[in-house]
Amino acid sequence: MILTLQEYYDPYSTEDLPEDLNYHLKMKDGIVNVYENNEDLENERPHDLPYADFETFVVDLSHILTMIADGPTKTYCHRRLNFLISKFYLHEMLNEMAELKELKKVPHRDFYNVRKVDTHIHAAACMSQKHLLTFIKKTYKSDADRVVLKKDGQKQTLKQVFDNLNMNPYDLTVDSLDVHAGRQTFHRFDKFNSMYNPVGASELREIFLKTDNLIDGEYFARIIKEVSHDLEESKYQHAEPRLSIYGHSPLEWDNLSSWFIQHKVYSPNTRWIIQVPRIYDIFKSRKLVPNFAKMLENIFLPLFEATVNPHKHKNLHVFLKYVSGFDSVDDESKHSDHMFSLKSPKPEQWDRDDNPPYSYYLFYMYANIMVLNNLRVECGLSTFQFRPHCGEAGSITHLVSAFLTADNISHGLNLKKSPVLQYLYYLAQVPIAMSPLSNNSLFLEYSKNPLREFLQKGLCVSLSTDDPMQFHYTKEPLMEEYAIAAQLWKLSTCDVCEIARNSVLQSGLSHQEKKYFLGENYLKDGPEGNNIHRTNVAQIRMAYRHETLWNELSFIVDAVKSDTMHSNFQ
Amino acid sequence: MILTLQEYYDPYSTEDLPEDLNYHLKMKDGIVNVYENNEDLENERPHDLPYADFETFVVDLSHILTMIADGPTKTYCHRRLNFLISKFYLHEMLNEMAELKELKKVPHRDFYNVRKVDTHIHAAACMSQKHLLTFIKKTYKSDADRVVLKKDGQKQTLKQVFDNLNMNPYDLTVDSLDVHAGRQTFHRFDKFNSMYNPVGASELREIFLKTDNLIDGEYFARIIKEVSHDLEESKYQHAEPRLSIYGHSPLEWDNLSSWFIQHKVYSPNTRWIIQVPRIYDIFKSRKLVPNFAKMLENIFLPLFEATVNPHKHKNLHVFLKYVSGFDSVDDESKHSDHMFSLKSPKPEQWDRDDNPPYSYYLFYMYANIMVLNNLRVECGLSTFQFRPHCGEAGSITHLVSAFLTADNISHGLNLKKSPVLQYLYYLAQVPIAMSPLSNNSLFLEYSKNPLREFLQKGLCVSLSTDDPMQFHYTKEPLMEEYAIAAQLWKLSTCDVCEIARNSVLQSGLSHQEKKYFLGENYLKDGPEGNNIHRTNVAQIRMAYRHETLWNELSFIVDAVKSDTMHSNFQ
Repeated sequence: MILTLQEYYDPYSTEDLPEDLNYHLKMKDGIVNVYENNEDLENERPHDLPYADFETFVVDLSHILTMIADGPTKTYCHRRLNFLISKFYLHEMLNEMAELKELKKVPHRDFYNVRKVDTHIHAAACMSQKHLLTFIKKTYKSDADRVVLKKDGQKQTLKQVFDNLNMNPYDLTVDSLDVHAGRQTFHRFDKFNSMYNPVGASELREIFLKTDNLIDGEYFARIIKEVSHDLEESKYQHAEPRLSIYGHSPLEWDNLSSWFIQHKVYSPNTRWIIQVPRIYDIFKSRKLVPNFAKMLENIFLPLFEATVNPHKHKNLHVFLKYVSGFDSVDDESKHSDHMFSLKSPKPEQWDRDDNPPYSYYLFYMYANIMVLNNLRVECGLSTFQFRPHCGEAGSITHLVSAFLTADNISHGLNLKKSPVLQYLYYLAQVPIAMSPLSNNSLFLEYSKNPLREFLQKGLCVSLSTDDPMQFHYTKEPLMEEYAIAAQLWKLSTCDVCEIARNSVLQSGLSHQEKKYFLGENYLKDGPEGNNIHRTNVAQIRMAYRHETLWNELSFIVDAVKSDTMHSNFQ
Repeated sequence: MILTLQEYYDPYSTEDLPEDLNYHLKMKDGIVNVYENNEDLENERPHDLPYADFETFVVDLSHILTMIADGPTKTYCHRRLNFLISKFYLHEMLNEMAELKELKKVPHRDFYNVRKVDTHIHAAACMSQKHLLTFIKKTYKSDADRVVLKKDGQKQTLKQVFDNLNMNPYDLTVDSLDVHAGRQTFHRFDKFNSMYNPVGASELREIFLKTDNLIDGEYFARIIKEVSHDLEESKYQHAEPRLSIYGHSPLEWDNLSSWFIQHKVYSPNTRWIIQVPRIYDIFKSRKLVPNFAKMLENIFLPLFEATVNPHKHKNLHVFLKYVSGFDSVDDESKHSDHMFSLKSPKPEQWDRDDNPPYSYYLFYMYANIMVLNNLRVECGLSTFQFRPHCGEAGSITHLVSAFLTADNISHGLNLKKSPVLQYLYYLAQVPIAMSPLSNNSLFLEYSKNPLREFLQKGLCVSLSTDDPMQFHYTKEPLMEEYAIAAQLWKLSTCDVCEIARNSVLQSGLSHQEKKYFLGENYLKDGPEGNNIHRTNVAQIRMAYRHETLWNELSFIVDAVKSDTMHSNFQ
């Protein structure tokens, strides 16, 4: 057997640690500020980094909100979108067979061996229900007498846990496990959330699906590694599972990174995304945090610490190499009472019991990530994307906030409702990780899902599974997702390969990996940026997308020019 | 390792051969007649078996044709069907959670480990496109220099075949293989049929997907065994693949059974169905048969031979143990010019060039199978089901013919168009093997597929794949079929388990196997016939189905009674 480079690579190595900078860090108005020394800190002279400005954000937000409600703008965008879809139909009719012919000529590359990234998947539900079931049974066979839980001060073995639940693991079925979404969950995000508890028992979730429990998250690590192993076996599939940081304690990051390193969770086919649930109100009511700023501090300060003083935070330093971004998660359909504006209190003053609104969360996550990224670039370290859940439900404002702050978003269903925003997402090519099977169980029937239409118009969409445990049936959830979309919407090979390409493009995979998976010049526009031998996307399709986008952008540039000229003549 | 009973079983054993009877066989009016001795043969005194009567069939056919066109009958059936669906909605609303509760209590049994039979699948397309691709590449690696084909008198090695096609197997992809159905095949059965040729090359079909070629069907046997192996691994999945007998030569059966035994194709998870393509016209034009009777003789006479003289036909005798039935296949949308009636010529007189109509094929297949089955029962041998493709497209008459002759049918889409026939299929519980993904690529969009409605009304429907090579994407085609149906139609666990139960019920699995998979009393009606520990179908559901059917049947009995009374009083 020949050892590949991969096998020589030690993912947990700390040999590349940069020097500690001993900078001073302090949260100010909800954003971590960096000071080079004590004097600068005292004089409030932060290190020269761009710091996001709340006022600018609020002004921009209200500007776009006005724009998307403007009649003529709505008509214009609606018409352009209609034009885009009709143009694609024409393209399809004229070039479908030519595209297929191109693809047939590509040696050794087809839909099965182009790279696909599952761009939106939650670690706690990344295994199928059958996998979780088998894992629980297997674990019980070997570990029945192991102490796995501390409840009400009492330590319990796995056997005792099951005895208390009045259950024999051998008899357990996917029915009694009851983690699969169905008719009962449609428009019931609350019910859906409780399905993360196997057998409706929070004990089992605690034991099997948590990183910081009595067994140091050993079982969770093991099952995740089994999922990663399957991805590695498949060779062409990657995933970006979400792990949670809640912000109720400053120790969370240390625990999570220790878990990652202790259990050797690294896999070349996985990049990690940190999801922050928007549940300040719960922590506040439990008195875990005094105000919103403290929550932000718990989330972000440790990252700044690890960035400027890596020697003091080796575990976190290593873990962060494989973290590619942040996600903001929760039920978007929950209404917020607070009217977001310039008068909104600063995070330090947000000490009321109710939850800040979506836009508030987004701005402060964005602001901290931006500072952090710039600091990390200075230190020669990796940076993070901001990829919130957005537009799955709730107010259209969410999509505006994300447009101003996010690298890409998950879901984006509500773009259906605003032609202006949809057109903006198209023009800016903001990537959207869509999960039609998840939507089908929660918010929108499959046949009404806008994915196909978005794809036709040229929005940068990818396919993702969200929660295989709750939604999928087969051993290959991502392939199931692709298969159903391809079947139902009669997608061509070129269509599905374009979606796969989009998924790599928008993922947190490294520049090197993207070069290898998409082609050396993947950052260039149009056919030039596409290596058909890697992506199996027809150059005709690439040219069509490029010309079409160019055309739309030119229209606007011309309109602005003639408008300026017009004004000059007046 | 403990040897199970299965492993002691020799599927190819000929120890159980019954005695040869030396009966005389002769085809008369398209039906094989059996004579005990020469004298009986001369006096035309056939052995006492029921022989189907053409006249009765024609009369019954026209009777039902009249009935399904009768206005009041249509209204009645339409209303009953509407009632059935509304009643099911009510049942669902009231009992859904109770059914689920029942299922949660069943230990160790869930949708994943109930038995499922793929009731309709063609052997030549039973592997996925990816599987076929990998198989071709793998075979080329080891067998490039093997002589595999004789073309125009010249023997060719595998390498020469690929060289002539100007192709390197290493470069082959699913795109260039081009066996997957897509938008191009919708309403184009002709295009679809040509997709059985990998790379559009009949050579590759000849080498890899045929039983009687220069290599004695070795590759085809090997790939089928790989598919069977996957089924055995899955443990709970079975399949009934179709193998072709064309009727152009009396030697076909010997070849097929030798192939089966030589390559040891037997698998405990497979039963074989013989498909007879309705292509007399092609054989006639090639002068392979003089008339239709000869085709029937080629198909059926060898079976009678093997039945009465097993010692002379050991291979065929063994093979027939694992053949569970017959299928009649071809594009139903092809129009037939011939008006089927009492005046239609007998098969011996059918020497014209055009093809007999669907009903004609069906009657003569049915008639021969009926005689054969009765003869085999006398000899203590297995019998055969008649399970034609029917109602996929074409005239509604097809469904009438099948109603009179078939044990169950494949597709049945056109029942949508006739309330009377649909109601008859319901009352008689004629099983229907449906393949919505196949339909979606060929005849009917998924969202318009009547499967869900049929299930709700209580028709006995199962799910099958038809042609995984052309339609499916994942490594588990049957699970993909179930997954998509469950997702799109939001089927409950009880729904999918009911479909799985139907599939076992209508399959050609043995009585012993059905007892084991469904419960000892599976032949009894209602909950009594159901072992929930085996099927995971709720007893509430079984009771509902039973009562509902009983109710519908009573209605008719009562109506007939009161009608008779009414007539008596007149």
